[in-house]
Formats: sequence, structure tokens, C-alpha cells
Amino acid sequence: MEIPSLMKAAVLMGLNDLRVREVSTAKPGPAEVLIKVKACAVCSSDISLIAKPWFGQPSFGEFIPGHEYSGIIAALGENVDEFEVGDRVAVEAHSGCGRCINCRRGNYTACLNYGNTKRGHRANGFTTNGGYAQYVVNHVNTVYSMPNSVTFKEASLLTNLGCVLYGFETVGSYIVSDTVVVIGPGPLGLLAVEVAKVLAAEKVFLVGTRDSRLNVGKEIGAGQVINIHREDPVKVVMAETQGRGADLVILAAEGDEAFEAAVRMTRRMGKLLLLSFPKEPILADFGTMGKNSISLYTVRGEGRANCARAVSLVATGKVNLKPLITHSFALDDILEAFQTFVERRGGAIKVIVEPNL
Amino acid sequence: MEIPSLMKAAVLMGLNDLRVREVSTAKPGPAEVLIKVKACAVCSSDISLIAKPWFGQPSFGEFIPGHEYSGIIAALGENVDEFEVGDRVAVEAHSGCGRCINCRRGNYTACLNYGNTKRGHRANGFTTNGGYAQYVVNHVNTVYSMPNSVTFKEASLLTNLGCVLYGFETVGSYIVSDTVVVIGPGPLGLLAVEVAKVLAAEKVFLVGTRDSRLNVGKEIGAGQVINIHREDPVKVVMAETQGRGADLVILAAEGDEAFEAAVRMTRRMGKLLLLSFPKEPILADFGTMGKNSISLYTVRGEGRANCARAVSLVATGKVNLKPLITHSFALDDILEAFQTFVERRGGAIKVIVEPNL
Amino acid sequence: MEIPSLMKAAVLMGLNDLRVREVSTAKPGPAEVLIKVKACAVCSSDISLIAKPWFGQPSFGEFIPGHEYSGIIAALGENVDEFEVGDRVAVEAHSGCGRCINCRRGNYTACLNYGNTKRGHRANGFTTNGGYAQYVVNHVNTVYSMPNSVTFKEASLLTNLGCVLYGFETVGSYIVSDTVVVIGPGPLGLLAVEVAKVLAAEKVFLVGTRDSRLNVGKEIGAGQVINIHREDPVKVVMAETQGRGADLVILAAEGDEAFEAAVRMTRRMGKLLLLSFPKEPILADFGTMGKNSISLYTVRGEGRANCARAVSLVATGKVNLKPLITHSFALDDILEAFQTFVERRGGAIKVIVEPNL
Amino acid sequence: MEIPSLMKAAVLMGLNDLRVREVSTAKPGPAEVLIKVKACAVCSSDISLIAKPWFGQPSFGEFIPGHEYSGIIAALGENVDEFEVGDRVAVEAHSGCGRCINCRRGNYTACLNYGNTKRGHRANGFTTNGGYAQYVVNHVNTVYSMPNSVTFKEASLLTNLGCVLYGFETVGSYIVSDTVVVIGPGPLGLLAVEVAKVLAAEKVFLVGTRDSRLNVGKEIGAGQVINIHREDPVKVVMAETQGRGADLVILAAEGDEAFEAAVRMTRRMGKLLLLSFPKEPILADFGTMGKNSISLYTVRGEGRANCARAVSLVATGKVNLKPLITHSFALDDILEAFQTFVERRGGAIKVIVEPNL
Repeated sequence: MEIPSLMKAAVLMGLNDLRVREVSTAKPGPAEVLIKVKACAVCSSDISLIAKPWFGQPSFGEFIPGHEYSGIIAALGENVDEFEVGDRVAVEAHSGCGRCINCRRGNYTACLNYGNTKRGHRANGFTTNGGYAQYVVNHVNTVYSMPNSVTFKEASLLTNLGCVLYGFETVGSYIVSDTVVVIGPGPLGLLAVEVAKVLAAEKVFLVGTRDSRLNVGKEIGAGQVINIHREDPVKVVMAETQGRGADLVILAAEGDEAFEAAVRMTRRMGKLLLLSFPKEPILADFGTMGKNSISLYTVRGEGRANCARAVSLVATGKVNLKPLITHSFALDDILEAFQTFVERRGGAIKVIVEPNL
Repeated sequence: MEIPSLMKAAVLMGLNDLRVREVSTAKPGPAEVLIKVKACAVCSSDISLIAKPWFGQPSFGEFIPGHEYSGIIAALGENVDEFEVGDRVAVEAHSGCGRCINCRRGNYTACLNYGNTKRGHRANGFTTNGGYAQYVVNHVNTVYSMPNSVTFKEASLLTNLGCVLYGFETVGSYIVSDTVVVIGPGPLGLLAVEVAKVLAAEKVFLVGTRDSRLNVGKEIGAGQVINIHREDPVKVVMAETQGRGADLVILAAEGDEAFEAAVRMTRRMGKLLLLSFPKEPILADFGTMGKNSISLYTVRGEGRANCARAVSLVATGKVNLKPLITHSFALDDILEAFQTFVERRGGAIKVIVEPNL
Repeated sequence: MEIPSLMKAAVLMGLNDLRVREVSTAKPGPAEVLIKVKACAVCSSDISLIAKPWFGQPSFGEFIPGHEYSGIIAALGENVDEFEVGDRVAVEAHSGCGRCINCRRGNYTACLNYGNTKRGHRANGFTTNGGYAQYVVNHVNTVYSMPNSVTFKEASLLTNLGCVLYGFETVGSYIVSDTVVVIGPGPLGLLAVEVAKVLAAEKVFLVGTRDSRLNVGKEIGAGQVINIHREDPVKVVMAETQGRGADLVILAAEGDEAFEAAVRMTRRMGKLLLLSFPKEPILADFGTMGKNSISLYTVRGEGRANCARAVSLVATGKVNLKPLITHSFALDDILEAFQTFVERRGGAIKVIVEPNL
Repeated sequence: MEIPSLMKAAVLMGLNDLRVREVSTAKPGPAEVLIKVKACAVCSSDISLIAKPWFGQPSFGEFIPGHEYSGIIAALGENVDEFEVGDRVAVEAHSGCGRCINCRRGNYTACLNYGNTKRGHRANGFTTNGGYAQYVVNHVNTVYSMPNSVTFKEASLLTNLGCVLYGFETVGSYIVSDTVVVIGPGPLGLLAVEVAKVLAAEKVFLVGTRDSRLNVGKEIGAGQVINIHREDPVKVVMAETQGRGADLVILAAEGDEAFEAAVRMTRRMGKLLLLSFPKEPILADFGTMGKNSISLYTVRGEGRANCARAVSLVATGKVNLKPLITHSFALDDILEAFQTFVERRGGAIKVIVEPNL
């Protein structure tokens, strides 16, 4: 595959100043590959980190964001023989240092050398360049083959699904017959509904504020949707579980009210899983949590190779990503893509940028 | 052993109205034993529940509190052959219904039939009568033989130690070489220091506000004590761990500040264990917890038969309970015992009532 | 419901001497129920224990076997309010003592007081009377409501499914995308195929010797069946997994060859689950298991309330029990039922006795 | 530090043909270090692999064995800043590929690319050159700083202790009050005794055939030693545990008899941990294991960064390695070292080679 020495990329030039420019095409190191990007999905963390740089983020003028992408293998590092040029692939964002005790124990998304590229850490789109570009370099351990039956747009959501699966693994998943409540019908919340059903949850509730999103939830399999403008979710869940509460409540929403409801609808010995990073502190009733033996789990990213599991769910159709993909734009229109995502224009859920249209 | 038909007991007659009276001595059911109480320790939950009844608590005039006690087997139910009259024993508070899925899975302190005596649940001192009495009935599954080398006063702290051990089990304990921080040098916090050392933690920090308590912490083995009036515990812990933070932070204290410090001193992928039931909601920075993959665990009571483990630690001297036992009173002086505990008179840590002096 | 004082039951009078006789109808204790048995399935352990009594089994002339059954609630003990007379129910066999540390930690099928009825242990059909009778007594903690949509014959297989689920829980189930091999297409093996698919295994192999059974495996969802008379299962599995091997191999068959094949087809860090109790010792290559970090798990019975999960899978149709139910007989014909099962007459898989036809 | 271009090393020239020769001193890659070896301990796997090459082993004439060593940092790769030249260090053998799902999940000693150096796997002394040499190259993720208080000989046993700790982690360690039996008083068995005591096991039995070794076991803390020539270990353990059996039985010995005894002395729901790789298949009574819900765990090597935990135990004196170190030899005398180890001359336990005397 011929690779141009220059490529188009969206470079962060300053606060909220993302510009499409020509830059040098990177070259893969020995254990890396070069990927020609076909689809890169907008994530709420993209919005956050262009407004206020995150820990470990490269300087303005040097940083290309974007961490949810898919494409075609364009070149191989000298020690890579798992792939061939032309392979269709999706990625995960985090490649740990491989040296710290978190990485050594498999928790590479919590790498203790986060942002330290000398020691080998990469988090594409966070601490190293990402996918809002025609080409991107990935460590081979973050790359997954995708079958032809999966579109590049779907493949760009692999990290989303990997993140949700990591959440289920983190809470110790074996969900058969459990009651699961998902609060917040954003992309992660909707995928959590799908995964709960994959693992044979008996009852899956989806709680939100917008009927349009809740209707998508119904489409992808929520057994019951609750619009908090019309119903008290705690009452509904307690009634439907004979007063016991849910085995697992997944918070993909922020705010004091959502958290309080989550605590109050969780069964004794039940679990809370947090899939969002609330911007503000939240008032938490730890007294009730303690008396009811409720524990709270968090996840950052798509850890423990759950993206490999995600490939299977997408390839076999057990998880349907299509209803989440609402819009796409060329790289030159990335700002419009961001606006569409932020303002949820036209019912936007996932908005995708295609750098090589 | 001769058992009187009437006995002295502290009965809760109304809000904060505990009175020593003569009542009928209870009789053990088929799988129960009658214990002659030698020592019953005052717990902060006693203070809380006489001021504001807890869920499942019997009516005023009928309820004898006290859940941390030890004594001598006085009579056996017809199906009990594990003990003999005269055996020295300690107890745990919770006997689950044995029917609900929490009990069936070993989580009897989170029994879904909590307070439902018809279905077999007992939590002595909470939902059934407790140890501020000359005699008390216990289900045989809550009774533990104690060797002669352990005094009754020490034995009365078995549930405290069982609760702390349950906390360590809940976070998935295998602590060898870990850094553990305990915030709050109350009885549970001090025992947490001892258990962290038993499990071979390398560094154990104890954080508090009173030098007298912190000095007890030093005596029982804290490697480093931090008085927050003089030092910033986050700075100290981060400095002593080369900026990584602690593997496990145990909160045995309430308040926003303690919680915030706990979050900020926890390592990526580290854990928080809550040993208290905060009376008020706490402002929690879940955003930082999420970005650092920190999970939060709670425990209620001394679950999963950890009291059996506690017996071993006390009997072998690996945990030293003596420094915690500061005061004792006759049953007639129970109000003074409570006052001593609440006001921490004379450096009170654990205050013990002896109903059969 | 009118309950006769005498009932028909199959009583074990001596070695392999099971006779249908009239006996007194048992009465439920305070936490027990009386069930009118509608269906009781023959299990290979029935065949084993009538030929050679198992640990804790009652004397000849006093013991009614049968542990896989369903029926209708006929009477309630005084402390039972979870059910009503007339409810359709299925059961599990084991009710632990509730006193030993195994029971206290949720492992009641491994009760340390196994067979000790004084201390409260019951294993119906093993150490207390079972379901080859018109009526049977169960502790309320072993009884599960079944919806009308589930037939009594299907309901009698609840413990089978509960046992398989307990196996998956024991290996730490979160199977999404894993490769699972089941060796032995008996009832438990076939159910294991179904559960592997429920948990989203990507590839499920079923290995056996009889095409008729393997065809049932295909019907209930095995992705690939391997008849060892025609193919080497190790070669097939290794080829289909790019030389890695299976993540989980489930042994529902006995013999040295099956075990050796299992070890050789398991991935490094993979797991073996044993669902059978081999009558003879097996030659095991622990050297290879060690070098490949393979662990071996066993289960006895349907532990940790997995029957509750099983109810959900059957009620929602996620697991289909119908293909396993091949024959049924009246209680008077129980010997013919046993023969049919043992000799696999007419392709017998599960053979059911109906005591109240 | 000046580094010679040639160094002395023991090269495997053919079956059982180990010769000390001059070879080129290796150079560290970007994430590697060069270590000047001070002590390299003889392991039974050394004896095994020179007699019959293991999977992934380099060709005769090119391979330097030895995987248990310590020394001084002599040179740093360009991306290494965790160490300085002159640092005292110990090592672990396995550096995984970092790409396969086992490595990504923290199980690098079970790397699916074992022996594939192109993909980044290294197992020094197994698939890449080891420590029977004056210098050796290690990936930085296998190197641990050792305090001055620990001798190089002790430091060379770090992987032994790391392996034992990994075994305890694998069985889900939280041993407080448990009964542990160790069968086989070799180096790993003796260390298992020490670790069981570190984790507060109440009773620790050591079973063997030679009083000399059993006496070392007593010295390092076994509560009771059992010489099978004089006592039946099953009877002793059952008697000392009131008929329950041990919670954990650790097999550091081979043979049918040891395994059978292990199964028979394990408590219902107890665990077996295998620390050896038996050369021959073993007759295993899986029927009894199944009926007693006993599971069997294996470990290969010192996984999940347990060597980091081992450093702490050695540095703090909680584990005493000194009684295990019985002999040492210069590199030129390596054949004598091997003989001493194999024949247990002079009560040899660990025999150490010092390549830079």
C-alpha cells in the first residue's frame, strides 16, 4: 500500500481550537502498525479534553485526538506478523507500559506510567496521536481483526463495547437471571442494556429523560424503559422486584439525583457500576450503601482485552451497533461533527468522522 | 447450671430511655443456646439505635440491645451438640434466615428477610434481644468457643474483629507488601491496622486527629501515624509511596474531608473500604475515582463466618485486643458506660458492661 | 388440599431392591413444605446409590430415593409464608445445616455436617427421603415457584440445570467469546452446551461417541459435534482455535482418554470443569497441566442457589429442556424406568417417573 | 561500569553437556538492562531441561541456562530510567509478549507466544539466555531492586518465593486461621510453609520422608512435621482437624501416593495447589474430589508480579531464606554444583553458582 509522506489530520492548536492540517505521516515502530483510518467516532471525552487538556496530553500544535476508530492495515513494524497489509481492523486506545505492577497484573488502562511514552505507555487520542487523521500508529496489542460483515463505522465503536464489557467483568459478571438497571441512555448506557441481555439478565430497565433515546433502548432490547419525567424509577424497580431492588445498577449518567436513585433501588449486597466520569462531586449516601452492603465499581477504558470479546459479539450479531450510528462527516467537517454530537442534533447518538472519504 | 426464671436486663423503654429491669429469662429453641453474659461491649450503633430505632428493631419496652458479647453456655437447645454447658463462648450478631438468595450464597449479614423472625432471621441486639442482660439466646451458628487464655472482655470484641476481617475479605485480601492507610483510629480502625499487619502489609499508616488514639495505633503496630492537625495525609502517603498512592484505604471515619483525602491518596486500581455508616451524605469525587479505576467496598457486620477466623487471631495473640479495652461497668451502671463511651472519658475506646458481676 | 395418611413410595429394601410400597405420609416441620410429586427424574446417582449406598444414606427399608422432582405445594409448615397450597414448584436436593463454615459461606452442597439431620442437614433422595413417592417434605429453602408455562417434567430437571450453572459459576464465568468444549453428551453435558451458548461463547464443541446423542447436541445448539470414532477431538479443537486450545473444557464423561484429551485441548491458563464423579481413578498428566497453568474445578450438586437462576432460563425459554425428556413411567413401573435409563433404551436421555398419575 | 566484550558462561552444547566457555557479552535493547550476575541458584528444571530440552529452548551451542539469579545493574537500555548502574537487583524469569490475551490479562507466565522472541516473549534460562554467565540481559519488567540487607544469594531465590506467592494468589489467598498442609519439603515446599505462616494460617503441617529436611521445616516455622515413614499423614491431619481436613493442601512432591493422601486430607470445598510438574501421569481419584467439591490449581513460574511482593517479605525478614542456602560454587565448578543439588550431597537444598567470584 502506498503511503503518502503527508496526511490530513485534525490538530489541537489551542483550547477548543481543532484544525484540519497537513502533517507528516507517522511511521510504525518495531511492534507497531500503521492504520489507514476509515472511521473515527466522536466521544464525550474528546469534547472534554479539547476544552481542558487531560493528564499526559501532548502540547497544543502537536496533538491529534480521536480514540475510537477503525481502518485498514497500511504498514507493519518489523516484529509484527499477526497482521497483513490490507487487513480490516479496529482498535482499543490503551497500550500500557508493560512494566508497572498494574500492567503486569493485566490492568493496563490503569497504567502507573500513564502518559510516559519513554517507558512505553500509549493511549492513542489521549497521550499519543489518535484517529482524527488519515493515518495513525498503533501498538500491535491494541489492534483487532474485523470480519468483512462488520462495517468500519460499527468497528469504530469497538472500544465503547469493550469498555462496557470491562465494566461487567469488573463487577464479577455472571448475570443469568439478575435484574439490571441502566441509568442514562447514552452510547455506553445503551450498550450496557445490550450486554445485560447477552448475559441473560431476566429484567433490564433503562432510565432516562428523553423518549427518543429510550425508544432506541427499546429497539435494542430494554425490557422496560422509565422516563423520570413521568415515573419514579425507584418505585418502579422496587415494585417489579417485589421490594428487593436490582442486582446491578449501572450509572451512565451524572448528578446527585441519579446517584441517589441508584443507591435506593439496589438490592442488599447488590452492586453499582459507574460508566461515567462525573465532572462535579456527587452527594453520596454511603450510610445506606453500608447498611445494605452495596459496593461501587468504576472502570476507565476498555481494559483486560475486552475488545477481543467485543469483536465476537459484533461479528456474531449478538450486539447490534447500528441503531447507535446516527451521523457521519468528512474529516474537513469535524467541527460540525462535534457540534452535532454535543447538541444531539437530529437525535445524534454516535457521530462518526471519516478521514479518508 | 441453674437458670433463674427472671433476670436483669437493660430494656429500651423509649427514645434514649434504657432502664435496667427484671424480665423473664428467655429459653433457647431447638437450634439455639442460652448464654450467661459475662461481658458486653458498647458499640456506636448502640448509641445510634437507642436514639433513633433502626429497621426491624422491636418495640419500646420489649427490646434489649447489645450485640458484642461473650459468656458461658448455660443451656442447650435439643438439637445442639456442638457445645456443652459451661463452655466459654463469644458470638456474632447476625443469624440469617437461611432461605433468601443472599443467605444461600453466604451473605447472611445482608439477609433479604432482615428483621423477619418468622422466617428465621435474628440479629441479636438489633432485631432480637441482645447482651445487655444476664442471659441471652443465640442461634448455634453465631456462637464460637473461646480458649481459656482469652478473657471475656477480649472475647466480647470478637464481632469487631470479625467485621474488620470481613472487610478485608470483601476487598479480596491478599495484602502481602501492599500499602494500607487507615483513616480513623476508633476501635474498627485500630483493628484494621492490626489485620493489615497480620496480612503482611509493608506500610501501614493510621490517620486521625487525637494523639492519644494515634499513640494506641503505634502501640498496636501502625508503621506511621498522621495527625491531620499537623500534616496533610495525602502528601505524606504520596511521598512515602513515590507518588503512587496506597493500595487500600480504609475509611473508619466520616465526613467530606476524610473521603476526599481517601480518594486522592489511593493508587490507580486501588480500593476503598468503608467501615463506617456515615450519618450524612458525603461529597464524593467519582470523576477522579473513575479516572483512577478506584472501587469502593462496604460491609455490614461480621459476615461470612469471619468471626471463626477472628477467634484464631485472638487465641494465637496475632491480634492484641487489650489496648482497646479501657473501661468496664456493672449492668446497673450501663448509662455511665454509655456516657463514658460517647464522651470518650478517660481516653475511652471500648467500654464494657458486665451483667453478671 | 386433602392429604392421605398413607402414600405410595419406592422404598430401598436392600441392594438394588427398590419396591413400591405404602408408607406414612410425612409431615412438614416449621420451615418445611409438603409437596405432591408430579414428576421425578432418574439420575445416574440413583443407579449408583441403590447399588452401593452413599455416605449418610438411611437404612434399607427406610429410604425413598429420588432428588430431581417437581410438584404442587400440598401443605405448609407454620413458619412458611412464601408459598401457598397449590403452587407449582420445583426443588433442589441440598439444604445445608446452616451452622458449619461451608454453609455459612454459601457452600451448602459441601456442608460439613452432611447427613447429620439433627444438626439440620437434608439432602433429599440422598440422606433424607426423596421424590419417588406421592408426597415429599422439603425445607422451604430448596423450593422454587415455577410458571405455568413450564411443564412438571421440565421442572423436574431444574437441579440438573442448577448443577451445570453452579459449575459455570465455580469456574468464574464470564464466557463472552470464549471457546468451550463439552466432552460427554449426557444430560449434564447437553445442558452445559446450552449454558455456554447462553453466556455468549463463540465456539461450542460437543464431543461424544454416539451420533444420536450428538444430534441432540446439534439441536440444542452445539456449533460443532465431534464423534471420537471418526475424528480426533484434540486435533479438531486445536485447528479451530489456531493452535491455542479451548478456554474451558467441561468433562461430563469418565475415563483416562477423555481426561487426556481434555488436558491436551485446553489453552494455557484455561480451565477444566468436572461434572461427573468418575468411579475409578484416572491417569492425569499434571505435568502438562502445570506447565500450561491449567486448573481443575469440581462441583457437587446445584450450589449457591443456582436453581433460582435456572428457573429464569427455563421460564424465558433461553434453555430448552424438552429434547432431553424422552420417556416417562408411572411410579409402579419405576424399575422399568430405571432399566430404560441405564440401557438407554429408545435413545433415552432423561426418564421421568410420575408418582401421582 | 566497564563491560568486557567477552564473558564466561555455561553453554549447553548437547544433552547433559554443559560447558563453561567464552562468549560475546550481550547488549541490552531499548527496554532492557544488562546485569552482572552475582548468584544464580540451581533449580530442578535446570536439571530437567539440560537432559531433555523444553519447549522453545534455543539450540545446543547457543543456550545459557539459569533463571534464578541476582546481581548488579551493569548497563541500561535507552528507555530505562527506573534503575541506575550499580543497583543491586534480583529478577524473575518471564517477560511475556505483552500482545496475547493471556499477557494482556496479566498472566504473562502463560504467554500464548511462549518462546516467540520476535513477538517479544522472553523466559530467561528457558527460551533466552540465563544467569549461568557473568552477564545477562533482562527486560526491565523482570528486574527488582533489592536492599543492601539482602545478600545476593538470598536475592537469587526471589523467583522461588515469587512462584510460591503466585500459588497462594491463584488459590484466592486469604488464609487467616486456615489449616495448610505442605507435602514435600523441597525449596518450594519450605517456602510454602513460610508463606502460610505469613498469612496467619493457624496450623501448618509439613509432610516428607527425610528428617533432615523436615527439621529445616521446623526451623522455618512448620507447626507440625510428619514423616510418612513413621506416621500416616491423612490420619494425623484428620485427627488434628476434628475430622474436617485441611483447607489447603500444597503438593510440592510427585507420585500417586502423595496425591492420594492430598485428596483424602482435604476438607470439603478445600483446595489443592500443585507446585511441581510431575514427570509421569498420576492416578487421581476425581470421584472423591468431585463429591467433596475439591478443586486443583497449578502455577507455572512467578506470575502476576508476585516477585514484587516477595521482595517485601525478604527485605522485612518475614520470610527467612537463609536456611535454604546450603552450598555455593564458582561458575567453573557448575557441574559439581549440579551434582551436589541432584544428589542432595551434604543435605543440599539450594545450591548457588557465583559467576563473578
